Amino acid sequence: MKNKKYYLGLDVGGTNLAAAIVDDNYQIIERLKIPSNAHRSTAEIIDNMVEVSRGVVAKSGLEISQISSWGIGMPSCINIKTNLLVHANCFGWKNMPIYDHLEGKLPLPFFIENDANCAVYGEALAGAAQGYKDVLMLTLGTGVGGGIIIDGKIYTGADNMGAELGHTKLVYDGELCTCGQKGCLEAYCSLTALLRVTKKTLKLYPQSDFAKMVDEQNIEFNGEIIFEAAKKGDPTASGIIEQYIKHLAAGLSTFITIFRPSIIVLGGGIANSGDFLFNPLREEVYKATFGADMIGVPPIVGAKLGNDAGIIGAALLEQKSKIFNKNL
Amino acid sequence: MKNKKYYLGLDVGGTNLAAAIVDDNYQIIERLKIPSNAHRSTAEIIDNMVEVSRGVVAKSGLEISQISSWGIGMPSCINIKTNLLVHANCFGWKNMPIYDHLEGKLPLPFFIENDANCAVYGEALAGAAQGYKDVLMLTLGTGVGGGIIIDGKIYTGADNMGAELGHTKLVYDGELCTCGQKGCLEAYCSLTALLRVTKKTLKLYPQSDFAKMVDEQNIEFNGEIIFEAAKKGDPTASGIIEQYIKHLAAGLSTFITIFRPSIIVLGGGIANSGDFLFNPLREEVYKATFGADMIGVPPIVGAKLGNDAGIIGAALLEQKSKIFNKNL
Repeated sequence: MKNKKYYLGLDVGGTNLAAAIVDDNYQIIERLKIPSNAHRSTAEIIDNMVEVSRGVVAKSGLEISQISSWGIGMPSCINIKTNLLVHANCFGWKNMPIYDHLEGKLPLPFFIENDANCAVYGEALAGAAQGYKDVLMLTLGTGVGGGIIIDGKIYTGADNMGAELGHTKLVYDGELCTCGQKGCLEAYCSLTALLRVTKKTLKLYPQSDFAKMVDEQNIEFNGEIIFEAAKKGDPTASGIIEQYIKHLAAGLSTFITIFRPSIIVLGGGIANSGDFLFNPLREEVYKATFGADMIGVPPIVGAKLGNDAGIIGAALLEQKSKIFNKNL
Repeated sequence: MKNKKYYLGLDVGGTNLAAAIVDDNYQIIERLKIPSNAHRSTAEIIDNMVEVSRGVVAKSGLEISQISSWGIGMPSCINIKTNLLVHANCFGWKNMPIYDHLEGKLPLPFFIENDANCAVYGEALAGAAQGYKDVLMLTLGTGVGGGIIIDGKIYTGADNMGAELGHTKLVYDGELCTCGQKGCLEAYCSLTALLRVTKKTLKLYPQSDFAKMVDEQNIEFNGEIIFEAAKKGDPTASGIIEQYIKHLAAGLSTFITIFRPSIIVLGGGIANSGDFLFNPLREEVYKATFGADMIGVPPIVGAKLGNDAGIIGAALLEQKSKIFNKNL
């Protein structure tokens, strides 16, 4: 009988440090989570990363010698020329020597990758894109994260700092993005963008039913409320969602035209809107994509694993081809 | 002593069928070209493709048994699900069974690839991107062709019909493109687009020096004239070129954000404008690209091989990893 293999995954976010043991069927068999307390010193954060990782191993009842490797999803990428973590806003890190910090902290080979890349890898291994070798994923949250799997491997560009799909141009000379550029996909397709457009629309049409509803109920509108109002047929909310879908479709059309992935996965809060989002989106993507009538467009589906995708993908980083652990 | 290897390349275009023998140093050692007469029957065109290919072998004094393979650059891609050539406007071909037509016509294994992909492969093997393994190329001509080399191999998307860089979106809901979509890169960065903008500008400013110059000299303006006038400081022409460069920079920024290639090569007539184009373009690309201040942008250089790039790339198709010759 073949020995079961176990992998240690760690998802480093601005809110939580979430660790898990993943088995070779890509199932999470144990988890442990602690708050990030992101404003502390680098040394303290690193200590906690190690601690929660050791903790989940102990909690699982496994010995660390039974673990194959330690995979870490970070909210930034590693510059393979310098081996530095480029930029993690939430921790105030810029060109941070992450490998030096983690070196020797656990008796395991370790692998680091951008969290969006871990998420698409997780969905491809065990989620909505299971069985697909060419996958494109967007996470539609506060920002727009993106990841690409080509032929079963995470694709991150020639220098490991590409595949930043949220910062491709969608609208020439358009809205200012968080990155300082103008017209990025993120500036139109993030939840933040949806809320910006809604706020602007409500100001323009204070007499609309949607504006009155928001006003009367004295609520802070959020993505869900906009989708709910659109579902009920509110024309203002419907117009906002329609425009949102057209922007997203145009963005996806660029990625299809370049990669022609076998499947597209959408994650993040907005993707929870289900068929109400996906059905018109599929139609718009077909309409907006070069050569769709001749060569079709890939299926577009919702992510399945939620936050687990990032941990599973991180845990299995050892299996991807590009290895950034300089010690191996 | 190692035997020299020879490759037979054929570039199939709407104007000419150009064949060449390429040696294993990627040098063209013999050439032969005949007009395409594109409006004839498929059988006649195919016969001529074979004839010019046989002809260049004979002209070179080599035996066909000394040739390694036959590589063909076509103005279309092959659908790997159907093995059909998808769409070649100039020949009126749509879903054309190219493999069946070429089968057994020459006693050589044969390989077919989109001509833009052959061009970037040629530049990477023997031209402006020699020695680079991750290359992105745009050909700025009547249309905008594009090709990508990832890790030394032509990248054409999961189904061989991707990498259509000219048809990625640059301007959301923008100008109509030849492909039927709106706002494609091609609709802003082709020579055709440059001429469209110029025509429109001259109509708007008939009293401008540039308009008068074009009018007085009774000339059909073309790309060269616009660049020449801009070089001489004509404000109208300069404005047109400035806008053109900004569009091109925004388009390139998307590709850099995704691929982070080691070098970008620009070919086609417009790229002949040299530093007058390249210097401001490099500046604009730096300004327009996500994270350029932290991670830089790749060098942008002019293509070196002209039309030979496509023939050299085609001849060497045997060396790339994805093989579409169903007979092998």
